[in-house]
Amino acid sequence: MTKQFHDSVLSPDTLDQLFNEARSYNGWLDKDVSDEQIAAIYDLLKMAPTSANMQPVRIVWVKSADAKARLAKLVMEGNTEKVLSAPVTAIIGYDIDFHEELPWLFPHTDAKSWFEGDEEGRKEGAFRNSSLQGAYLMLAARAVGLDVGPMSGFDNEAVDAEFFGDNSRHKSNFICSIGYGDTESIFDRSPRPDFGTFNTIV
Amino acid sequence: MTKQFHDSVLSPDTLDQLFNEARSYNGWLDKDVSDEQIAAIYDLLKMAPTSANMQPVRIVWVKSADAKARLAKLVMEGNTEKVLSAPVTAIIGYDIDFHEELPWLFPHTDAKSWFEGDEEGRKEGAFRNSSLQGAYLMLAARAVGLDVGPMSGFDNEAVDAEFFGDNSRHKSNFICSIGYGDTESIFDRSPRPDFGTFNTIV
Repeated sequence: MTKQFHDSVLSPDTLDQLFNEARSYNGWLDKDVSDEQIAAIYDLLKMAPTSANMQPVRIVWVKSADAKARLAKLVMEGNTEKVLSAPVTAIIGYDIDFHEELPWLFPHTDAKSWFEGDEEGRKEGAFRNSSLQGAYLMLAARAVGLDVGPMSGFDNEAVDAEFFGDNSRHKSNFICSIGYGDTESIFDRSPRPDFGTFNTIV
Repeated sequence: MTKQFHDSVLSPDTLDQLFNEARSYNGWLDKDVSDEQIAAIYDLLKMAPTSANMQPVRIVWVKSADAKARLAKLVMEGNTEKVLSAPVTAIIGYDIDFHEELPWLFPHTDAKSWFEGDEEGRKEGAFRNSSLQGAYLMLAARAVGLDVGPMSGFDNEAVDAEFFGDNSRHKSNFICSIGYGDTESIFDRSPRPDFGTFNTIV
């Protein structure tokens, strides 16, 4: 039986941890993130919804000094030190040919055939759904007591060649450092819009 | 002082509510979602990160019988009844010209100039970041005790004309019904990948 949580609003502390007090960090305390913590993040994010369970995200977790140095050369100057100092930086990519996996990921029906011959549609679906999965990753990291610092300032083609070079159908979307955030590295929070600014109820 | 939650792993029940037991619903109990609940979802999702705080998401919350009927005509046949029966369906869109808002959303620097004259870059940034915000929306809805049912099977251009018609720079990304899920409307959960299938640590 599926558990439900109707009208169960999470506690103020939990909403602070996930949304209200969490920040995007630019600097990190000198404390490792373990492979077990990385796996815990993935094991949460993979449960959240993707279209037809396509699960297009492909993640390279950059953790060794050598890999950090290779990635740091391919990011914008302002991001170099962030990548070098973070315990781990996730390269959040996607597989344009995710449909090849649908026979086992979505076994109820022949979903693979919906995407065959439609590379443009697959690119759009993979980009949208790997972005969703990148967002799940960030909230999952916060849910296990870690902080994040997402970045899109890097050379996507060079990162693809360096880290997805063995599969030309895998493309980078964005990157995200993960660790224990240093409060010295953040500024005042940017303003947030009131509901009426960007929303309408019809 | 920024609150931090280092190594605070959320409780098993909370992780169930957000990730492990939550499901994408196809049918809904006959119970309304209030405007206050909708605002609570937005007030959480807007706190989560977007690139340069661009906040590109533009949301139309389809709640009246008339608006549901207008939207239901523009979705794939399999989604018609979902839209008609859901208490509310959010049209998650984005503004290609989000950069016009950056002077107040990102006041630290002249971020608007980074995007001027680069419409392709803005489209990519708006699509990526509105997708992130759509994912935040789904987890925020779960965080306040509601269920979600995301859908991408609809006519984007027709939805844009019908619901974003007063601003041709606003485009739909995906739609998501929100309410109290009916367990009768779901099937067995689709398989999830092991860590090693789509991840590498380097």
